[in-house]
Amino acid sequence: MTSTHSPSPLHPVSLIGGGPGAWDLITVRGMNRLQEADVILADHLGPTAELEKLCNVSSKIVVDVSKLPYGRQVTQERTNEMLVEYAKQGLKVVRLKGGDPYVFGRGFEELEYLAEHGIECEVIPGVTSAVSVPAVAGIPITNRGVVHSFTVVSGHLPPGHAKSLVDWSALAQSGGTISVIMGVKNAGSIAQALIDGGLPGDTPAAVIQEGTTEGQRSVRCTLATLGEVMVSEEINPPAVYVIGQVAGL
Amino acid sequence: MTSTHSPSPLHPVSLIGGGPGAWDLITVRGMNRLQEADVILADHLGPTAELEKLCNVSSKIVVDVSKLPYGRQVTQERTNEMLVEYAKQGLKVVRLKGGDPYVFGRGFEELEYLAEHGIECEVIPGVTSAVSVPAVAGIPITNRGVVHSFTVVSGHLPPGHAKSLVDWSALAQSGGTISVIMGVKNAGSIAQALIDGGLPGDTPAAVIQEGTTEGQRSVRCTLATLGEVMVSEEINPPAVYVIGQVAGL
Repeated sequence: MTSTHSPSPLHPVSLIGGGPGAWDLITVRGMNRLQEADVILADHLGPTAELEKLCNVSSKIVVDVSKLPYGRQVTQERTNEMLVEYAKQGLKVVRLKGGDPYVFGRGFEELEYLAEHGIECEVIPGVTSAVSVPAVAGIPITNRGVVHSFTVVSGHLPPGHAKSLVDWSALAQSGGTISVIMGVKNAGSIAQALIDGGLPGDTPAAVIQEGTTEGQRSVRCTLATLGEVMVSEEINPPAVYVIGQVAGL
Repeated sequence: MTSTHSPSPLHPVSLIGGGPGAWDLITVRGMNRLQEADVILADHLGPTAELEKLCNVSSKIVVDVSKLPYGRQVTQERTNEMLVEYAKQGLKVVRLKGGDPYVFGRGFEELEYLAEHGIECEVIPGVTSAVSVPAVAGIPITNRGVVHSFTVVSGHLPPGHAKSLVDWSALAQSGGTISVIMGVKNAGSIAQALIDGGLPGDTPAAVIQEGTTEGQRSVRCTLATLGEVMVSEEINPPAVYVIGQVAGL
C-alpha cells in the first residue's frame, strides 16, 4: 500500500468546535469531518452525548478525553500524545471540543504540540456557548441602541488570584454585556468585583445551566443576587451567566 | 386544505446565523431549516453566495434583503414587514444572516417585530465572525496563560460619537483580546482611542478581510499602524481586526 520511496503524507488533525451541546449545533464542516474520521478524541461537552446522530460511531475509535471538574481527568499532555500517536498511524483524527476550540478550549496548545511533531492541524470553528446559550434562552448578547460590545470571560479563577489576567474593574466600566463561562464556583466573588468596579448591583443578570440541551434551565436575577442564586438554585457546570441590560429583555 | 373551524397555525420564523462566509460553516440545524424553507430572506454575508450547496434554491423564494454599505439597501422596516407577510401566508420562512443573529445582527429587533404580529421566532445561533475569522487565519482569540477574556466590539461608530455606547478607555485596560467587526472605516480613530486609554502602540494586531472565503487575505501589524494598514492594503468590508498578544502568535 505504501511506497518505499515516499511515505504517504499524514492527514491533518481536525480540531473541531462542537458547539454548545445540542448535536445539530455543530457546523456542517464539522459533521463532515466526523463522518470521515477514523478516530475521535472527544470532550464530555458539545455533541459528544449524541455523537451517533452525526456519524457512524461503530466504525470509529472514540476516545473520551474529558477533564471533568472533580471527576475523570485525562491530562492535556496525554491528549496531546494520543493525537500525535493516532495521526502518525496514518489515521484521520478529529479532536472534538465543546463550543469553539479557541474560546478557552486549549485548542492553540494542541495545534502547537502537533506542529512540533510535524503534523498539520485544521481548525474548524464552532458556535461558542458564551453567545449561543443565552440566545437559545431568549437573551440577545447585543441589542441595537442598548449595547455595542460584549466581553466573554473565563471565570475559572477568582478576581485577585495571582494567575488571573482579567481586570474586572475595567470590565465593569466597559459599557458592554459580560458573558462568563466556567465561572459557577466564583460567581459570588466575580459579581462583587464588578460591583466594586462600579457596575450597579441592580444590573440584570441571567444564569443558564446546560444550555441548548434537554437539561437546560435558566434563572433571571441581578448582579447583586447572582452569587446567592447559584447556591439557592443549585446551579452546576456547565453554565453560562450573562450580566447587562440585555439580561433583562 | 384548511379547516373552516380552526385556521392552521403559522410556522415560526427561523432566524438563522449563517456563519462567517464559507457555506459549510453554518450549523447542521441551520442547514436543515434552509432545506425545509419555502422562503429565504438573506443578507449578502454568510453562506448566501453559495446557497445552492445547502439547499435546492430553485424550489424556494429567495429574497435579497442586503443592507450594503454605500450600495443596495433594503430597509429594516421592509425586511420586518416581508417576514410577517410571508409567515402569514402560512409559508415556512427563514431569515438568514451572516455570523450570529445576535452579534450586532439586529436579530432581536426582528424577533420583537414578529412577536408583535403574533408570529413565533426560533433563533438558531451561528459561528460569529469575530472569533472564527481570526481562527481560520491562524489567530486564537484566547490562549491559556496569555489571555482570559476577549471583547467583541462593533466599530460602526467612531469613539466619541454621540451614539457610541463603548468606553474605549476601559477596553484598553481590560487585559483581554479585542475583536472589532464593522470597523474598517473607523480603524484609525479606534486605534488612537485605545492608545489614549493606555494600550501600548506596539500591541500586536491583525486584519482579516473576507475571512473563511476564497477572497480571504490577512495582514499583521500593530495597534499604532492599524489605521495606516487599512488604507495602504486597501482593506474593504467585510473585515475583522484583532488587537492583543494573540495577534502576534
